Amino acid sequence: MSDSHPGASHEHRGDVESAAAPAVAPIVAAVVTVSDSGFAGTREDTSGDVLEELLRELGAASVERSLVPDEAETIAARLRELADRSAVNLVLTTGGTGFTSRDVTPEATRAVIEREAPGIAEAMRFVSLQKTPRAMLSRGVSGLRGRTLIINMPGSPRACREQFEVIREALPHGIEKLLDSGGDCARPDESPRR
Amino acid sequence: MSDSHPGASHEHRGDVESAAAPAVAPIVAAVVTVSDSGFAGTREDTSGDVLEELLRELGAASVERSLVPDEAETIAARLRELADRSAVNLVLTTGGTGFTSRDVTPEATRAVIEREAPGIAEAMRFVSLQKTPRAMLSRGVSGLRGRTLIINMPGSPRACREQFEVIREALPHGIEKLLDSGGDCARPDESPRR
Amino acid sequence: MSDSHPGASHEHRGDVESAAAPAVAPIVAAVVTVSDSGFAGTREDTSGDVLEELLRELGAASVERSLVPDEAETIAARLRELADRSAVNLVLTTGGTGFTSRDVTPEATRAVIEREAPGIAEAMRFVSLQKTPRAMLSRGVSGLRGRTLIINMPGSPRACREQFEVIREALPHGIEKLLDSGGDCARPDESPRR
Repeated sequence: MSDSHPGASHEHRGDVESAAAPAVAPIVAAVVTVSDSGFAGTREDTSGDVLEELLRELGAASVERSLVPDEAETIAARLRELADRSAVNLVLTTGGTGFTSRDVTPEATRAVIEREAPGIAEAMRFVSLQKTPRAMLSRGVSGLRGRTLIINMPGSPRACREQFEVIREALPHGIEKLLDSGGDCARPDESPRR
Repeated sequence: MSDSHPGASHEHRGDVESAAAPAVAPIVAAVVTVSDSGFAGTREDTSGDVLEELLRELGAASVERSLVPDEAETIAARLRELADRSAVNLVLTTGGTGFTSRDVTPEATRAVIEREAPGIAEAMRFVSLQKTPRAMLSRGVSGLRGRTLIINMPGSPRACREQFEVIREALPHGIEKLLDSGGDCARPDESPRR
Repeated sequence: MSDSHPGASHEHRGDVESAAAPAVAPIVAAVVTVSDSGFAGTREDTSGDVLEELLRELGAASVERSLVPDEAETIAARLRELADRSAVNLVLTTGGTGFTSRDVTPEATRAVIEREAPGIAEAMRFVSLQKTPRAMLSRGVSGLRGRTLIINMPGSPRACREQFEVIREALPHGIEKLLDSGGDCARPDESPRR
C-alpha cells in the first residue's frame, strides 16, 4: 500500500535526501517535441527549449531532447525507447494534443503507458480552465511506463510555461515514489526495469 | 504540432471567416436522444428540443435529430452512421449517462470514438460539481471520430442547458480545429473521411 | 434515459423510502484494504477501520472487510467475487493508488469494472487539489460492475476521511440509481445479476 497524500510517511527516501532539505528525487528528464514542421526543420523548437529550461530550473540532472513528426508510431517508438533503455524517469512531450487530424500524441502515449496517472492531465486542464474555456479541448494524457512518468504538455511555449507551473511542485514527489523500489533504496540508474 | 491554447495561431481558417468577425466554424450538428420511453413514443423529447435550440442559437447550419432506445449497439450504430456518412461535425447525445442498468450511452460512445477528448466531459462535471455533488455521478464521455466531435450531454432539459453553457464558447474553436485539414482549407462538406 | 442531475425525477424508489425522509438506498458495503504489509500482518488496517466507521455512519446495512496484498490478480479476483456473488452494492478499496511499482489497485479495478464512472475519482482529486498539489498523483478510478459501485480510496486514514467527505452526499443517490431495475422496484437483494 502506497499513498501520495501529504499525510503519508516517506519510508524509503535513501541517500538522495539531506537531513535539512525536503526530499528531491534526482530527475533524469527527456523532452519530446512532436511537430511535423519542427521535424522538417521549418519551425524552431521553442516549446522544447522552454520545457528544458524549466526542468533544469527544477534541478533535473539531465534533459535529453528529441524531435519527432506527428506520427503515432514514431512518437510511441520514441517514448518506449526513452522509458525502457535509459535512466530517464520523466518524459514531457510537447505538441499534438489538439483536435486536428495530425494530433495523435495522446493516442501514442496511451499505447505506451502501463499505468495511467489521470490526475496530472486533469489538474493541468482544470487550472487552465480558470483562464480559458478552450483548455477543455486539450486531450493530453499522463501515465507511467515502468519507472518513467510520461506527461503530454501543450504545444505553445506560453502554455508549456503555464502548465508546468501546475505540476512543478508535485513532480519531484511523484518521481521519488516512482523510483522507490520498495525498501532497497535503489538509485534511479540502478532501478530494475521490467 | 497543433495547439488549442489561446496563444496558438490559426493558420488555416479558409474562406469561412470574414475579415471582421471572429472565426466561427460552420457547425453541422446532430442530436441523438437516447431514451427507451422516448423511442417508444411515451415520452416527449424535450432535452433534444433544448439542444437543437441551443445549437441553432450558436449558429449551427443544420441540426439533425435522432431518437434511439437505451441499447449500446443501436446507439453506437447511429453515432457511427452520423460521424461517417454525412457532413456532420458535431454530435450531442442526451440521456443514458447515469447509473441504472439501462444507462449505456458512454459505453456506446467509447466504442465509436477514435481519439478521446476527456477535457470536455471533465469540464462539464467540474462546473456542475460547484452546484451539486451529484454531478460526480455523470458518466459522460467526449471524443473524436474522424472529423466529428461527439459529446454525451445529460438527460434532463435543465441539465442540458446548464452543461451546454459550459461548452458553448469552446465548441466553435474545437470544431474549427477539427475541420482543419492541414493547409488545404477544405470546407467541412469536402473534408476527407477515413 | 436516466439522469443523475438534481432536476431529474425519481420514479422508481420503491418501498425503501419513507414519505418524510429523503430516499436513502440500503448500502451493503465492502472495504478491501490493499496492502502487502497489512496482508503480512505487520501493519494495522487503520484505513480500513476508518472507512468501515464512515460507512456505518452513513447508514450502511453491513460492511464486509477484506485484506489483500498488492497483487493485481488477487485484488481483481476479490473485487469480482464481492461484486458478483453477494448483495454488496458498494466496494471501497484503500491503498495501492500511488506511483510505486507495487501500486496496482487502479489497474485491477479497471480490469473488473464494466462501466466507468470517472466523475467520482475526478471529484475526489479535484477537491484534494485545493489542499495540496500532490493530489494530482492519485491514480484512483471508479466504476460499476453489474449493480456494484467500486471506488478506489487513498491509502492513509486521514486521506480516507477527507475523500469520503467528498463522496458522502452523492453515494446514496448513486447506489439508489444503481439498484433501480427499471420499474419493478426490486429490492437490492433481489436485483438481477448479469
